[in-house]
Amino acid sequence: MEVTRTLARYVVNSRSTDIPEAVKREGVRAIVNWVGCAVGAAQHEAAECALAALIPFAGPAQASVLGRENKTDILTAALLNGITSHVFDFDDTHLPTIIHPSGPVASALFALAEYRPVSGAELLHAFILGVEVECRIGNAVYPNHYDVGWHITGTAGVFGAAAAAGKLLGLSEQQMMWALGIAGTQSSGFREMFGTHCKSFHPGRAAQNGLASALLAEKNFTSSNQVIEAKRGFANVMSTKQDYAKITEGLGKSFEVTLNSYKPFACGIVIHPSIDACVQLKREHGLSGAEVEKVQLTVAPLVLELTGKRSPQVGLEGKFSVFHSSAVALLFGAAGEKEYSDACVRDPKVIALRDRIEAVIDPKLRDDEARVRVTLKDGRSFEKYVEHAIGSKEVPMTNEQLESKFRGLADDILGPEQAARLLTLVWSIETLADAAEICRLSAPQARPERQPRRA
Amino acid sequence: MEVTRTLARYVVNSRSTDIPEAVKREGVRAIVNWVGCAVGAAQHEAAECALAALIPFAGPAQASVLGRENKTDILTAALLNGITSHVFDFDDTHLPTIIHPSGPVASALFALAEYRPVSGAELLHAFILGVEVECRIGNAVYPNHYDVGWHITGTAGVFGAAAAAGKLLGLSEQQMMWALGIAGTQSSGFREMFGTHCKSFHPGRAAQNGLASALLAEKNFTSSNQVIEAKRGFANVMSTKQDYAKITEGLGKSFEVTLNSYKPFACGIVIHPSIDACVQLKREHGLSGAEVEKVQLTVAPLVLELTGKRSPQVGLEGKFSVFHSSAVALLFGAAGEKEYSDACVRDPKVIALRDRIEAVIDPKLRDDEARVRVTLKDGRSFEKYVEHAIGSKEVPMTNEQLESKFRGLADDILGPEQAARLLTLVWSIETLADAAEICRLSAPQARPERQPRRA
Repeated sequence: MEVTRTLARYVVNSRSTDIPEAVKREGVRAIVNWVGCAVGAAQHEAAECALAALIPFAGPAQASVLGRENKTDILTAALLNGITSHVFDFDDTHLPTIIHPSGPVASALFALAEYRPVSGAELLHAFILGVEVECRIGNAVYPNHYDVGWHITGTAGVFGAAAAAGKLLGLSEQQMMWALGIAGTQSSGFREMFGTHCKSFHPGRAAQNGLASALLAEKNFTSSNQVIEAKRGFANVMSTKQDYAKITEGLGKSFEVTLNSYKPFACGIVIHPSIDACVQLKREHGLSGAEVEKVQLTVAPLVLELTGKRSPQVGLEGKFSVFHSSAVALLFGAAGEKEYSDACVRDPKVIALRDRIEAVIDPKLRDDEARVRVTLKDGRSFEKYVEHAIGSKEVPMTNEQLESKFRGLADDILGPEQAARLLTLVWSIETLADAAEICRLSAPQARPERQPRRA
Repeated sequence: MEVTRTLARYVVNSRSTDIPEAVKREGVRAIVNWVGCAVGAAQHEAAECALAALIPFAGPAQASVLGRENKTDILTAALLNGITSHVFDFDDTHLPTIIHPSGPVASALFALAEYRPVSGAELLHAFILGVEVECRIGNAVYPNHYDVGWHITGTAGVFGAAAAAGKLLGLSEQQMMWALGIAGTQSSGFREMFGTHCKSFHPGRAAQNGLASALLAEKNFTSSNQVIEAKRGFANVMSTKQDYAKITEGLGKSFEVTLNSYKPFACGIVIHPSIDACVQLKREHGLSGAEVEKVQLTVAPLVLELTGKRSPQVGLEGKFSVFHSSAVALLFGAAGEKEYSDACVRDPKVIALRDRIEAVIDPKLRDDEARVRVTLKDGRSFEKYVEHAIGSKEVPMTNEQLESKFRGLADDILGPEQAARLLTLVWSIETLADAAEICRLSAPQARPERQPRRA
């Protein structure tokens, strides 16, 4: 079985009309989420360091770094957008493999689209195929490959970026195999890097290297035709499991992007059920936070083990505090990146509520389950039970929730008005004659009243 | 034991005066060999494809692609020089690991030296340290790492490039650990790619990515401090052998560059003893080839198994013909890249002599041993026994032989006069106030009489 050829042939021959509408809709949702994450982290330290280091060597102003004013060459833009879209750990997750699929693929595609114009529908089609390639390759080797120590978003992502970019370039079947080969022989990224800038560097390099692979293949730079399945190729060298049927069976019938999920909250997933319950309580009972006497969380054991920090001092520590997270959910109805800023963690109003929150463990609860009871100063009390947290497979985020997340990320960078226009534009991607309109509208436009972000 | 820190600290604290003279001399020899290989392959198809694909996205004209007229940004130059220096398979070999050490390290350093001027002595020092780092890391995991399927020149080379570039940048110990970390998390390259353009892409990317890692670390882009030894770091993820003592013991006392070797002939090593004997016979007896009646080669069994092609039709096939190789050795006294051109393989004079060469197997001969008997038309005959071929550990190439190899590679690209000046300049690297003089003199200067290369 020629695994690499089968996959290359599928990508080359796929037509946009072959993709079911529901699959396209999920693709658009993934892109909405990706744009929000990339714009939101545009000023993150990792991006600032990378730009400072690499801009002296970058090429012409061809493509946008989302959320920033200056353009750069398409390969550097792909790297930067890959970094920013992942650096908040707020991007999408392919549930069967925990690949974050959009970062590598969309970062390559949008950069390329600014250099070689394509319609939004063409870009969406290539995006869906890129996600298909990276996730199928991930399925073939997960979990063994991940357990060895590979950061699968980088190692599989580079294939997806190459396939997607190669589709836009109109590569032949042979060139597509070369593109996958050149990409695969750059597959890399250790889990050891988690907690450092290098974690988000992985999807960044995957986007950049995948894009470069497609460009090289277009000029007939050669590679093996069996990068995936060869004895000394990807699956054998980098995994102890090789289930090639996961790559070749059902191509064009099932679509991995439909197994994608989005994080509603900018913190570890075990806190999500508590936050979800608090947000619902706030909304249903019009709570402002000031009327709350005390809050009792009933949570799964892992919650306090991982996120039991009572008194976080900086934003990052807030992500490891179920108390801080529940407090901001009750106060602001959100737990986005903004609610994990240093300023928010030190906000006296947040601290006052946080100190009135208690948590007890119920060993019978699953990790995505929680119960929250709020007692008000007037003696009333309300309870909310969450069976599956929002963002789980069972309770996917609605489009409205994705929009709310988008605004929470983009408003401070672009201003609410431009962020709203950008959001509308991304939702309408299938109708755009030029997909790069999205990139252009992601650059902050001069606004005298613009506020600096909360630190 | 903190392996990564120990190595980083050594590189950061090493002074040029700590390096013994004999080690420096070997470093200069390696650089001479590297410049010759890179200049010689400047017009190779792999380089042409890569340039055509990537130049539209490259940055300012900062650094030379050796042997070519146009400059590009330092990261793209590092990639291209890494490709050209390896693409003939004619570069150096670290005997304990079969790493080709100069490609990743020198390609990063010379590109950087054109952007941030350094003396030749400083560059030589950084080069020796870079080779030390990549080869020690290679020693720690070889052969298991190679046997898994990794192309060790790429996977270890990226560390060497980062360390060397980081030394020139004056990184702190912490930054040097980050540089090694950023480099290591990009370590990649499958042996599956041998026989395709991707093989030489590996040292190219290693040079480029290692250089980028040092530049990122300089701007405090963070990584793990234990990339080599962590549970989910390089040695554990990419090898089943982890002999860390090979990295940390004897630092500053023994030097891996002294275990470097150079190929005298542009073909597989099993043919080298026969070629060596023919070159010696030609020289000792003033043979021109026309006076030869017949030639009898007595060779080890592997020779005919791997290189028994009687009638090669194209240059590449000539590399798999002990008959063609021995013929050119007798006719031209050389078996460089030129002698493996299509034109040379089809040269009637070469074919005529080739057809008068016979080979017999002697199972008692080692692979680096051969016996050649030449019988002349006037009835005289001469015999030459080679115990160890030139270029082996026992019989290293002399400086004169390195010069002859250099001219065989560079004369057609630069013209003999400029090639000779470049060679003199490289030998004098330790005296240069600006190491980049070497790069500048590697660009072909306008010469109306310049001949196109033999195809």
